[in-house]
Amino acid sequence: MLDFFHTPAAVAVVGASDDPEKIGGRPLRYMREFGYAGTVIAVNPRRETVQGLPTVPTLADSPVVPDVVLVAVPGQAAVDAVAVAAELGAKGAVVMSSGFGETGTAEGLRMQEEMLAHARRAGMRVVGPNSQGLASFHSGAVLGFSTLFTEEPPADGPVGIISQSGALASVPYGILRRRGIGIRYAHGTGNDLDVTAAELAAAAVKDEGLELLLLYLESVGDPESLVELGERSRAHGVPVVALVGGRSQSGSRAAASHTGALATERRVLDAFLERVGIWQVHSVRELVAASELYLQGWAPRGDGLAVVSNSGAVCVLSADAAEDAGVPLAELEPETRAALTEALPAFAATANPVDVTAALLTDSGLFGKVLPVLGADPNVDACLLGIPVAGRGYDVERFARDAAAFAASGTPLVCAIPQPDVARPFVEAGLPVFEEEASAVAALGQFLAHRRRMARADTLPRPAVGRRDSEGRPLNEADSLATLAELGIPVVAHELVASPDDVPAAFERLGAESVVVKGCTSAATHKSELGLVRLRCRSAEEAHAAAATIVRSAERHGVPLDGLLVAPMVQGLHEGLVGMTLDPVFGPVLLLGAGGVYVEATPDTQVLLAPCTPTEVHEAIARLRLAPLLAGVRGEPAVDVDAWAKAIVRASEALADPASPVVGFDANPLMMLEDGVLAVDAVVLVR
Amino acid sequence: MLDFFHTPAAVAVVGASDDPEKIGGRPLRYMREFGYAGTVIAVNPRRETVQGLPTVPTLADSPVVPDVVLVAVPGQAAVDAVAVAAELGAKGAVVMSSGFGETGTAEGLRMQEEMLAHARRAGMRVVGPNSQGLASFHSGAVLGFSTLFTEEPPADGPVGIISQSGALASVPYGILRRRGIGIRYAHGTGNDLDVTAAELAAAAVKDEGLELLLLYLESVGDPESLVELGERSRAHGVPVVALVGGRSQSGSRAAASHTGALATERRVLDAFLERVGIWQVHSVRELVAASELYLQGWAPRGDGLAVVSNSGAVCVLSADAAEDAGVPLAELEPETRAALTEALPAFAATANPVDVTAALLTDSGLFGKVLPVLGADPNVDACLLGIPVAGRGYDVERFARDAAAFAASGTPLVCAIPQPDVARPFVEAGLPVFEEEASAVAALGQFLAHRRRMARADTLPRPAVGRRDSEGRPLNEADSLATLAELGIPVVAHELVASPDDVPAAFERLGAESVVVKGCTSAATHKSELGLVRLRCRSAEEAHAAAATIVRSAERHGVPLDGLLVAPMVQGLHEGLVGMTLDPVFGPVLLLGAGGVYVEATPDTQVLLAPCTPTEVHEAIARLRLAPLLAGVRGEPAVDVDAWAKAIVRASEALADPASPVVGFDANPLMMLEDGVLAVDAVVLVR
Repeated sequence: MLDFFHTPAAVAVVGASDDPEKIGGRPLRYMREFGYAGTVIAVNPRRETVQGLPTVPTLADSPVVPDVVLVAVPGQAAVDAVAVAAELGAKGAVVMSSGFGETGTAEGLRMQEEMLAHARRAGMRVVGPNSQGLASFHSGAVLGFSTLFTEEPPADGPVGIISQSGALASVPYGILRRRGIGIRYAHGTGNDLDVTAAELAAAAVKDEGLELLLLYLESVGDPESLVELGERSRAHGVPVVALVGGRSQSGSRAAASHTGALATERRVLDAFLERVGIWQVHSVRELVAASELYLQGWAPRGDGLAVVSNSGAVCVLSADAAEDAGVPLAELEPETRAALTEALPAFAATANPVDVTAALLTDSGLFGKVLPVLGADPNVDACLLGIPVAGRGYDVERFARDAAAFAASGTPLVCAIPQPDVARPFVEAGLPVFEEEASAVAALGQFLAHRRRMARADTLPRPAVGRRDSEGRPLNEADSLATLAELGIPVVAHELVASPDDVPAAFERLGAESVVVKGCTSAATHKSELGLVRLRCRSAEEAHAAAATIVRSAERHGVPLDGLLVAPMVQGLHEGLVGMTLDPVFGPVLLLGAGGVYVEATPDTQVLLAPCTPTEVHEAIARLRLAPLLAGVRGEPAVDVDAWAKAIVRASEALADPASPVVGFDANPLMMLEDGVLAVDAVVLVR
Repeated sequence: MLDFFHTPAAVAVVGASDDPEKIGGRPLRYMREFGYAGTVIAVNPRRETVQGLPTVPTLADSPVVPDVVLVAVPGQAAVDAVAVAAELGAKGAVVMSSGFGETGTAEGLRMQEEMLAHARRAGMRVVGPNSQGLASFHSGAVLGFSTLFTEEPPADGPVGIISQSGALASVPYGILRRRGIGIRYAHGTGNDLDVTAAELAAAAVKDEGLELLLLYLESVGDPESLVELGERSRAHGVPVVALVGGRSQSGSRAAASHTGALATERRVLDAFLERVGIWQVHSVRELVAASELYLQGWAPRGDGLAVVSNSGAVCVLSADAAEDAGVPLAELEPETRAALTEALPAFAATANPVDVTAALLTDSGLFGKVLPVLGADPNVDACLLGIPVAGRGYDVERFARDAAAFAASGTPLVCAIPQPDVARPFVEAGLPVFEEEASAVAALGQFLAHRRRMARADTLPRPAVGRRDSEGRPLNEADSLATLAELGIPVVAHELVASPDDVPAAFERLGAESVVVKGCTSAATHKSELGLVRLRCRSAEEAHAAAATIVRSAERHGVPLDGLLVAPMVQGLHEGLVGMTLDPVFGPVLLLGAGGVYVEATPDTQVLLAPCTPTEVHEAIARLRLAPLLAGVRGEPAVDVDAWAKAIVRASEALADPASPVVGFDANPLMMLEDGVLAVDAVVLVR
């Protein structure tokens, strides 16, 4: 859909400058230098030519209808340029000018909205304003002004970079170019008034030439585009690594003053990105750390790691790093160990990690012998080669040849080689080389886990991001319990009666040893504090008296009652909770965790997007600190975790429906029984 | 004490080789090339000269008594060389030969022990065997064979590297040399048969020229040396950064097959290093990451960080990174913000982080204006300067001059500059430059926190590492409670009686509503499972019957009883625990945490070394997940945390005494009351 931004047949530059260093001059220079083959229309009312190109005085004078109009003039002139572009029938505009919404001024916002209105009227798409521009190096359509393209010459390649921030498009561009990696796109989108970074990313990821997409965001205007990005990323096998700024309170505040922060709980974003198969990182370092691994075309079977080094300490540190990175060390088969014993000198370690010892100095073929032996082991899915010290006296070229031959056989291989001269032949052979083992293992761990996450995302339902209305009014407890039951969450048996005199009969009908009596109201949420709850009433008389007290308390506090709710006292083996909110960006989110009175003081909860699957729920439960207790410890019976999971899944499916009137609920405690779970207390919010 | 290894007047090389690439040849070459001014005696029975030096046929023929004998001959010849060196009166030997303890063979271990016996007899100190050797670049006494010294030429400087692993001495050496940092020591100690890496480090850290010491360990043979290292590090103002390999299970296994793993619970090591002021890192990357910061001579007042960048996104990411690194962003004074508003263009962010915006391109003086304004703010203790994009059109030289001038005024300044050309003038000005903001902030956070940790370590008692015997026998409950009381831990009132018939009187004397009756024995620890505990006896008769049942259960299980223990039932507001073990390396360790029956299933504990201070205990309690509940939530009263802390401190002081017979105890639950704490169940182990 947005392909015209990447391969426009004709581009008009409004504010085209003769100075190739000016914002309106750079795109002309870049398109000339980087091989743009389409038509460039330079718009400049004051010059006949700019940088050797003939000009037209106004955009309306353009001899052809440009696919994209690039706007480098300020303020109202930019708005007018967009209006003319829309009128001409251009498909898109890229507004590099700043001074709009990002300033936070009324005038800036007004001009931005006017710009949008012009575009919308004609169905034209707008990138920016305050955009560093879009740079597509396969077509040479460099519709932007980043300084970096003169500092680090571009080369088309397998990596796309799409960023709300211009700087954060340029920085990974520069780092990867210096590592010799080609970049297909380096886009800085700016204010995301119309086209968002996510939408551009979803368009770019279909590109056959792309193998990796790096994304920087500070806000999420259209979660639907992110869902689509995830789906296409998986369909086309192009992994997406995302850095979302503003995780911290002060970072979020800084983002708010900059591009507009993300109004969502961070772990909801985390759950969302995980759900759609996008890998989230937390720094620029991490954003680019594993890039080389994604570009190898590897398809590992599993994640068992074998480590080979000529240093025992590197073996030790690699094992530590593997645990940190969640990469299991492969258990070697007896045949493998026997073959290693044959290949290696006495006293070398033939368990994994494999220490070939200083014997490497006298036998340059050791890596060439050991790696294929490891590769043949069915438990080995990836290898780390650590060469902390080599140099004169070592046949480094041969090591690199042996390593490259092994990697060519299909087993992922990462190298930890601190000496640049030793690393060089490995890098030249196309192998991913890191300065030390922890960085190498971390990158490998990310690559392997990201692959698993993408495969898993294919099995999960699409998150219901369409639901985002969040205003709601509370239901009273009886209606809340009824709603929960409709959602599929088992609720305690209960009776709603009109007056204290009806309570004894309800007590008898329930047939419980002990009941709770509550004032049923939608006008108060902290009922205990208002004296509207009486626990453990063991007789009809006690229950009647409790009800009378509750009615008096309600009168005293001016709380209108819809009746009195009587229910058996239920004590679970453990107390859980389940709740739901509508995230302002990502829609219905389920909360599950340990319940009871200490939920706020020592929270132990997990979030899941709706709808969710039983597997997801079971995994979320397993992450709770409470989890080890649920199986029953010290002779206690196990609780019915399945029933809990089923209730959550059913509720999540109901809540994913855009027609659902429920915008939030809180069931705490959810009593966890040997057989089933039971909500005994609930507040539901409806539209 | 070990100074002769660093500045020997004369060195003999046994196994001196004419080949400057051989292990016995490299030290001769290195000492010649790197300016060793002392006497070198080359021992070689087969040649008149080696590398131009005249030889002596045997060590015994040495014309002078060498301070250090460097051994490069294998097996028994190495043992003999050590014997002769000891006889001659050499102060030390460095045994580079391998094939000893590290092979795990009986013969290797025997030879190693023989070597040690020769040295001990004469009071000679031995480094190694299996040592890469010691390299002291201020004296040129390079008593080792690392390949790296030819790959990366040495230069004397402020950093010492001491490592059990040769590779892990060479790797940081190479990384730091490539960063232009001078290295004073690069020692690989090997098997640590006699002199340990820690002992060498404690000797090195007194060196006036040293400003930073990097340590790599896989085992801790002498914790006393580590204590001393910490003390001297603080006294001399030389921070120590330590990487201890073998954190993970597989890493520890790999270390065991390599140098011998650390037989201690990892968090005890963590607590120990923290206690003595040594900063622990977890990878080579982290080991060297903050080096430049330690070498600046900075003495920051606090840890308030101000961020300045020409990119809003870098401001956002720096704020996120600051939170990750535990570095608070400084709250700017109103005068500072006013001055920033004056200095900066409209729409620039004048809160912290400070975004100077793209206006930097037109006003190259912006950093020079902004940094001093921030430095004058009393809340700003350190600055981060982030320049993600610059280059042509930017006055980068001026930015660097302004930054250097600011840093020279004493406020720590770290830079995040990805472009090498932009970074160069900053590096040349001596400023610490990182590729991106998260790495810069993490290094700064380490530097600041390490300073705080060193200052704090000065206020803490010396850990009682001398106590390491750990075999013990259990006391029965009455004796255990008595011992706890002696240690200073309040225990529940109780009566020990001989037979069930004595129980009713004990019940009356205790005057409690309800009591627990227990079979008192040292022969069983899981008393409940054996039917030796009866809770909640509410009358003398009930208690009597319970006692009779217990006696029968004990008979049935063949458990000898020392009597019957009767105590009031006590219910705390919360249940805690306190325990103690003797760590095989680090001595008495206290365990504190949440108590009760779920301790094993969901542990929530902290460890502290004995003796400990009230502040340490309060901080450890604050780290518990249980902590938020202790202050009282939802209207509950607060528990007496002070009483808990006091009990732990008193016990820790008693246990630090080497004469203490107690080698372990476990008091769980420790009932936490509004007023005081009370141990109601205890097992004590004594020598």
